[in-house]
Amino acid sequence: MLNFDFYNPTKLVFGKNTVKRIGKEISSNGYTSVLLVAGGGSIKENGVYDIVVNSLKNNGIKFKEVWGVRANPVISKVNEIIEVAKDFKADCLLAVGGGSVIDSVKAASAGIFVDNVWNLFEMRKPVTKGLPIFTVLTLSATGSEMNCYSVVTNEAEKKKWNIAGTPLHPVVSIVDPTVQFSLPWHQTLNGSLDALSHIMELYFANDTSITTLAVNESLSKTVIEMTDILQKNEKNYNARANLAWAATLALNGISGAGQGGGDWASHGIEHGISAVYPDIAHGAGLGVVFPAWIEYCYDANPSLFERWSKNIWNGASVKEGIENFKSKIKSWNGAVTLRELGVEKNKLDEIADTVMLAGVQGKVKKLKKEDIKNILQLAY
Amino acid sequence: MLNFDFYNPTKLVFGKNTVKRIGKEISSNGYTSVLLVAGGGSIKENGVYDIVVNSLKNNGIKFKEVWGVRANPVISKVNEIIEVAKDFKADCLLAVGGGSVIDSVKAASAGIFVDNVWNLFEMRKPVTKGLPIFTVLTLSATGSEMNCYSVVTNEAEKKKWNIAGTPLHPVVSIVDPTVQFSLPWHQTLNGSLDALSHIMELYFANDTSITTLAVNESLSKTVIEMTDILQKNEKNYNARANLAWAATLALNGISGAGQGGGDWASHGIEHGISAVYPDIAHGAGLGVVFPAWIEYCYDANPSLFERWSKNIWNGASVKEGIENFKSKIKSWNGAVTLRELGVEKNKLDEIADTVMLAGVQGKVKKLKKEDIKNILQLAY
Repeated sequence: MLNFDFYNPTKLVFGKNTVKRIGKEISSNGYTSVLLVAGGGSIKENGVYDIVVNSLKNNGIKFKEVWGVRANPVISKVNEIIEVAKDFKADCLLAVGGGSVIDSVKAASAGIFVDNVWNLFEMRKPVTKGLPIFTVLTLSATGSEMNCYSVVTNEAEKKKWNIAGTPLHPVVSIVDPTVQFSLPWHQTLNGSLDALSHIMELYFANDTSITTLAVNESLSKTVIEMTDILQKNEKNYNARANLAWAATLALNGISGAGQGGGDWASHGIEHGISAVYPDIAHGAGLGVVFPAWIEYCYDANPSLFERWSKNIWNGASVKEGIENFKSKIKSWNGAVTLRELGVEKNKLDEIADTVMLAGVQGKVKKLKKEDIKNILQLAY
Repeated sequence: MLNFDFYNPTKLVFGKNTVKRIGKEISSNGYTSVLLVAGGGSIKENGVYDIVVNSLKNNGIKFKEVWGVRANPVISKVNEIIEVAKDFKADCLLAVGGGSVIDSVKAASAGIFVDNVWNLFEMRKPVTKGLPIFTVLTLSATGSEMNCYSVVTNEAEKKKWNIAGTPLHPVVSIVDPTVQFSLPWHQTLNGSLDALSHIMELYFANDTSITTLAVNESLSKTVIEMTDILQKNEKNYNARANLAWAATLALNGISGAGQGGGDWASHGIEHGISAVYPDIAHGAGLGVVFPAWIEYCYDANPSLFERWSKNIWNGASVKEGIENFKSKIKSWNGAVTLRELGVEKNKLDEIADTVMLAGVQGKVKKLKKEDIKNILQLAY
């Protein structure tokens, strides 16, 4: 088991009818002036917006709004959030949405204190200062509600990169699973694939943390089981709730304890894909890339990949585990090839180049451009 | 899945050669004057004391020492710690030891700010103020290194009760598993039984948090597997490390997410036993009480207890699960009856009365004095 530090000071408020607590949580932390950031408007349809606004008003909190954060969020929007927050003199930021909204708010939180926020992404140093962040989660997927990571795309440079740092932990995140009853199936599915991928990025990186491997197998099986239930009944509260909590645990430090930081090559490859094709959802891209990555890399540690195959996918071999994984994605009506996602074959080289902007990928195997292309071919 | 808040701001520093970081962790948090609290002296034999003291000196931290915290720690010692801390004007407290030392320091942390620390135990209200706490853990068992609970015995009144509250979360806890290489087997065993018991107290309280149940089964199986390895080789680092992390997770909030606070009747009963027999180790007492409690209570939720039996103990029925659990304890050379622990049969009534000082016990079944006596008989 590798050495690790675990530190996660985010308070997670979890369960039915908890969104209305947001105002009190903000005011009891001493903040009075909030910039509310949101996406395309689904929170007005599902009632979350009204509950949040009433809660802010009832607790005497001034607020202003920025709308229009998109999936695969972009640095231009982050700059807009920064400008409005400065102008409004916000003393904290409130993300109401999924991982893209939260990640945009995190980037803005750090960006408020520097001249050029993208420089933070280029420097790859931990963020040391940020405006306090609160979140109301509307889609369980990225785990961003309870970690200190932010992934944002620089659309001009086609770089989908990340920053991290202690101040980027949300102070309080509210997760009400009932909010997710109205999600379209593909969003639920992509969230599950994202959560499964986070667990795999950490799982395959080290084989000595037996506790973490066992916990991660439990989380994976729970994600699969709950996704199966939700495919039949999108309003099953218990499945929504258990999926939501498993997705949070998938990237809040627990799933990575003693795993040395994880592999993250599949994420790197997916980031290249969605930097070139911004309409491909992150989770959908990961669902295609990960089986190919496993096929390409499992000879680096056969017994660990066999354990994964056996304990999660009931596979007698790694190949069978991969096939069962892909069959499950198909049964969920998800894509298992880049072709299905609309990627053109003549773009694979450009995607590999885009991936390599961030340097050699991965830890299980150190992947160079030729390796990335091979994995993309396998996934095609 | 029941609603819950998760908040655990303790920074856990985990792994080999981490004890020497304690001085830096304290000074970087701005503290300069530490009261070091310890037990009977084992930390002088295993080298931990020297490493801690050098680290404090190297970071310019003044310190004073209080020694002699015993297992099943007592309120008179807590009062001594409070007096010395006040006199020394300590700005934080450092526990170097196992759960008893940490719990004593937590009680002192809160007690410094009130006239009579035992009143906090009697009032059963959350602690709202405490002197900052740091810990160096030397025995994985209670999980106290990463939670906000403290259990202390009032020896005059034979009450072994608890307090809790946000300020009692250690700021930083250091867990170096190599420190535990020199533990006598019975201490390792009692630690494992304590960790397993914490998981069970939470597990049996609710059957809707599938994520939590699955994680708790993984933790339980890991504790059992690692204890088996350590019985053969006490210096197996990976087994020590994985057991240590599983024991921390067993009571840091993760194992209780959505479980509504847990049952805790078995702990209540054990606290009665060790209030009357202070030399009975907490974990050893729990190993005897829990199988009897399960036998007495499982008809309240047969399917959940069957799940536990099947998934952890490979039992075809609850009875078989209980038998396999007891067989495992015997294979570890642990006690499975109160008689083996030295409890006299004519004391069972007094123990039951002592348990009832804290009121009706448990949630799976509400246990009154007659029930407690029945369980004690089953365990005898």
